[in-house]
Amino acid sequence: MYFSKLFVPTVKEDPSDAELISHKLMVRSGMIKRNAAGIYSWLPVGLKVLKKVEEIVRKNLNNFDAEEILMPMVQPAELWKESGRYGEYGKELLKFDDRSNRGFVLGPTHEEIICEIFRSHPKSYKDLPVNLYQIQTKFRDEIRPRFGVMRSREFLMKDAYSFDIDEKGLVKSYGKMKDAYISIFNEIGLDYRIVKADSGNIGGDISEEFHILADSGEDLIAVSNSSDFAANVEVLNYDKDPSELEGKKSPDGKGKLKIKRGIEVGHIFQLGQKYSQAMNVGVKDMNGNSVHPFMGCYGIGVSRIVAAAIEQNHDDRGIQWPDKITPFGVNIICLDPESDEIMKVCSEIYSILKKSGFDPLLDDRDIRAGIKFKEHELLGIPYSIIIGPNNFKNTKLEFGIRAQNEKIDMKLDDIKKYLGEKYD
Amino acid sequence: MYFSKLFVPTVKEDPSDAELISHKLMVRSGMIKRNAAGIYSWLPVGLKVLKKVEEIVRKNLNNFDAEEILMPMVQPAELWKESGRYGEYGKELLKFDDRSNRGFVLGPTHEEIICEIFRSHPKSYKDLPVNLYQIQTKFRDEIRPRFGVMRSREFLMKDAYSFDIDEKGLVKSYGKMKDAYISIFNEIGLDYRIVKADSGNIGGDISEEFHILADSGEDLIAVSNSSDFAANVEVLNYDKDPSELEGKKSPDGKGKLKIKRGIEVGHIFQLGQKYSQAMNVGVKDMNGNSVHPFMGCYGIGVSRIVAAAIEQNHDDRGIQWPDKITPFGVNIICLDPESDEIMKVCSEIYSILKKSGFDPLLDDRDIRAGIKFKEHELLGIPYSIIIGPNNFKNTKLEFGIRAQNEKIDMKLDDIKKYLGEKYD
Repeated sequence: MYFSKLFVPTVKEDPSDAELISHKLMVRSGMIKRNAAGIYSWLPVGLKVLKKVEEIVRKNLNNFDAEEILMPMVQPAELWKESGRYGEYGKELLKFDDRSNRGFVLGPTHEEIICEIFRSHPKSYKDLPVNLYQIQTKFRDEIRPRFGVMRSREFLMKDAYSFDIDEKGLVKSYGKMKDAYISIFNEIGLDYRIVKADSGNIGGDISEEFHILADSGEDLIAVSNSSDFAANVEVLNYDKDPSELEGKKSPDGKGKLKIKRGIEVGHIFQLGQKYSQAMNVGVKDMNGNSVHPFMGCYGIGVSRIVAAAIEQNHDDRGIQWPDKITPFGVNIICLDPESDEIMKVCSEIYSILKKSGFDPLLDDRDIRAGIKFKEHELLGIPYSIIIGPNNFKNTKLEFGIRAQNEKIDMKLDDIKKYLGEKYD
Repeated sequence: MYFSKLFVPTVKEDPSDAELISHKLMVRSGMIKRNAAGIYSWLPVGLKVLKKVEEIVRKNLNNFDAEEILMPMVQPAELWKESGRYGEYGKELLKFDDRSNRGFVLGPTHEEIICEIFRSHPKSYKDLPVNLYQIQTKFRDEIRPRFGVMRSREFLMKDAYSFDIDEKGLVKSYGKMKDAYISIFNEIGLDYRIVKADSGNIGGDISEEFHILADSGEDLIAVSNSSDFAANVEVLNYDKDPSELEGKKSPDGKGKLKIKRGIEVGHIFQLGQKYSQAMNVGVKDMNGNSVHPFMGCYGIGVSRIVAAAIEQNHDDRGIQWPDKITPFGVNIICLDPESDEIMKVCSEIYSILKKSGFDPLLDDRDIRAGIKFKEHELLGIPYSIIIGPNNFKNTKLEFGIRAQNEKIDMKLDDIKKYLGEKYD
């Protein structure tokens, strides 16, 4: 992509309603645009990152035998009455009537719809397990939407639902999904913890959360300094003064606890029969009897991951994207696009890197070099190649590594090799 | 994908509310599931087709320099009041209040939001043209939703919006988008016509529709028998008795008119300054004066294309998918999955075809062969390989071509070559 053809409405000032650095940087780098409280548009650079996260989620879920579907955003109120959540869910559930005065809700989650789909087709134990997921727009009418896309009202979520004939099957499906999540978050490349959690109003018994660690995180989690143990402070009954946990022995016997802050980006639940019972979902067991299947549900906040990645990876000059979700693989900064000679070199390098699959950006804009460097750092592209009047004839190119604030002279072939290792 | 692991809830009976063959076949083949009037879930097989259409649309738009964004489904009512459409649009515009009693609508289209995005960032003529598109869920509260996903209330649409400094620029952007559409519909592989049309309530002067020809189409179009000419009968002022047009001289002087039926799947408009004026969008021209940009808008009914493809491509046994949007490239029908020997052969062929990128399905279910054949024809996968006790040791395989109702003995290498030509 040539920068001159890209719609990147960068903004100089921080948005007045922004408290979090990710919110500020996403608006300033032209990734998102606010349309109403808690409602955002994703502009080209932002959407590129969102789509990369989405693709990593999709690929790994498919590898772990989940099947993609797409359920509606507008859901009939009667299904929510059947599950009992129409009254229970609170004001985050946005309700309205259609033109024929039938009641509907904007889907904040899809347990009711998935049960309706599943119960419409008689199944037997032989057809299980089934694990269906979607990557779809949700709406939760938060009382205080804030932090940009971190706690917005409309957002992109991956939600999956598993069906098993018995609890043993559920435990297995849950474990498989946990493995899929580990593989997803490893691939995205963020520092995260799997945290023992409370199930909240989704119901069910066992649940774990996936948290991206960041100082700005809303949740306090207690983490062992010498094992994988991590739990919400509430689970350890320390919601009133969690600082008392600091230095205490870890409940798993290994090491001492430290208090960290996390951003919840995933949550996996063993729901059991809560919804299958309420919604009267039946499956034939080995003896031909109809039983309620054991369900699991599994969420990932796809749009929230983008913001959380920035909370964890930035400096005072801008974003520092992890390699796997950067909007562009490398930024070729042309210092004199007016010169045909120099632009020719830049375009050739651009074509070579594009063919190699590194998704390059070529900053061909006729503006001051200082602005180009500033915006490069703001946008957070991990690597750059700087080409100008003083070096465009050199056999070695000036290669910049954003995270290390470093510039090295490298041959194009070596740059290709280097990027190949980063992006494969 | 192994069929035994695929969630395909086929249905024996036609849905009682179905009039169109595509509606019947999509429900019966387990592609979609109705959740409310005009509101559907896309199940795995259906979503695979939808995603293939989506990818063809996306790839071609990117090739023609359009940039993908994602705008919200929930839009503030105040923007619709500003454009004047809040009152004008009618009851298809679903309105509601959020928990703080602020007015919102469910987006049936996004002219207001795109203007809001565009006007927030001061632009000059140098930044134009800009063409932004999204592939996103829309809601239109149809008074009589019907025909399955053909005229549903919630549906997937591609909508694009172009901005130019003057009318000349708009004509160019419009032409480029028309070329992109031609390339999209050629690639999907359906018989379509570009039809002169009326702009309806979107406004603007010039517009053309893309229609997929099918006997069940809702629109009557007059087509020349010896040129590209095609127009809605209303445009020719023949909405009262269109049959009178039959045999008349074509307005372009070439050939005679025939009346055909079409399904509108795309619509491109030259909007001019209607929205940029109403929403006060400004761009600096060469003299530094602020002018209202000339806009175009361009829609494709992504989910409707799936249904339209079936209307055009089916027989009395089921769907006949065009190669480019088939849910699976080839169906390996194993006639005796209980036999380890036979399943071994099937799995090996499956792996080879999967590696070659032909996205095979392996019907490994322990059910009667007759049902497998019936469901194969219902699902509409263009090609099959039938492997059973009588032929699993043969060097030539039994290769079925759905459209020709034909079976040929072919070596695996020849099948690979054949499929390679179809799917490349």
